[in-house]
Amino acid sequence: MQVIADLCIVPLGVGVSLSKYVAACEKVLGGTGLKVLWQADGTTVEGPWEEVFAGLKRCHEVVHEMGAPRITTTVKLGTRVDRSQTMEDKVRSVEEKLDATKTE
Amino acid sequence: MQVIADLCIVPLGVGVSLSKYVAACEKVLGGTGLKVLWQADGTTVEGPWEEVFAGLKRCHEVVHEMGAPRITTTVKLGTRVDRSQTMEDKVRSVEEKLDATKTE
Amino acid sequence: MQVIADLCIVPLGVGVSLSKYVAACEKVLGGTGLKVLWQADGTTVEGPWEEVFAGLKRCHEVVHEMGAPRITTTVKLGTRVDRSQTMEDKVRSVEEKLDATKTE
Amino acid sequence: MQVIADLCIVPLGVGVSLSKYVAACEKVLGGTGLKVLWQADGTTVEGPWEEVFAGLKRCHEVVHEMGAPRITTTVKLGTRVDRSQTMEDKVRSVEEKLDATKTE
Repeated sequence: MQVIADLCIVPLGVGVSLSKYVAACEKVLGGTGLKVLWQADGTTVEGPWEEVFAGLKRCHEVVHEMGAPRITTTVKLGTRVDRSQTMEDKVRSVEEKLDATKTE
Repeated sequence: MQVIADLCIVPLGVGVSLSKYVAACEKVLGGTGLKVLWQADGTTVEGPWEEVFAGLKRCHEVVHEMGAPRITTTVKLGTRVDRSQTMEDKVRSVEEKLDATKTE
Repeated sequence: MQVIADLCIVPLGVGVSLSKYVAACEKVLGGTGLKVLWQADGTTVEGPWEEVFAGLKRCHEVVHEMGAPRITTTVKLGTRVDRSQTMEDKVRSVEEKLDATKTE
Repeated sequence: MQVIADLCIVPLGVGVSLSKYVAACEKVLGGTGLKVLWQADGTTVEGPWEEVFAGLKRCHEVVHEMGAPRITTTVKLGTRVDRSQTMEDKVRSVEEKLDATKTE
């Protein structure tokens, strides 16, 4: 089963500057072979279910190893069986609808 | 790694009445051996990382098999390595703080 | 417009023990007149749109005043115009479906 | 209070193709004067608290008017009082940390 998942990993108990931990997660996810898109508030990954959640687990392990005693994460994920759809498809689909409304 | 995760599984393309699908997920999760707490807007589960996400994957599979072409899910999850904490601990901890503020 | 919203407010930069802040938010929300349900991982509130988000804003203000430099919050919210539905209705609806599957 | 919020608005009961509704929300948010960033799985907006949530409310109203009987939305939002930070700052901060790890 293919998944598109938006991951927002927040370490607690390590102060307010979190970019070091976010960068570590980007590095972990970048090394997985998953398709990864970095965004302002989280990271979007695309791939097989097991690999996506193994990647997320590895992020938690790495951030704990870096000293964070506690992590809270929000994941938004989507699966579909009617047709395959990539992250790029989703963006393109919205852009086409927007273009259509402009010419109405 | 132990996880407490709040799962909110939303099938798309099947109309507005979702309770049938929610009930099917409750049944899946109830059969996993994980600790499960049913709530108004989602289900909280507690257990080892692999089992929690295997349970979530099984929910997606079952809901797709029931006819939902597309599923969007939100997961809030927490891990901690400083000490073990159960769902009940979290609720109790807040209740104690509330009681303390009442007697201030 | 009536909303059912699940609020999970996480202060950053204040260590790992968050129950003091959660209790303060419970107190704020408890004083709003909204229907409030306390859960293991967040708080569910029900009421008119403006009141729900005014309550959430007040929580952010109070938690910042308590010393948290940064707050990250996850809100899951639902609105519907086909019929009115309370938090209790949602739970009951799932319970009925579960009972039905048991007798199948 | 300034907010950065990631909005993911999902209409229910209208089939699986949601891009029409997403495009309508983009149009609403694009007309608010808020800073808006369109992403694969949601929209990030930045601005004053009241304007962000008025924009979100308007999206719900518009999507209901388009025929969706039910909407489920996930919002991840952040506020901070220690310093001002824009969406661009957040992305730049992570990029700098990533660059630093590459030259280690």
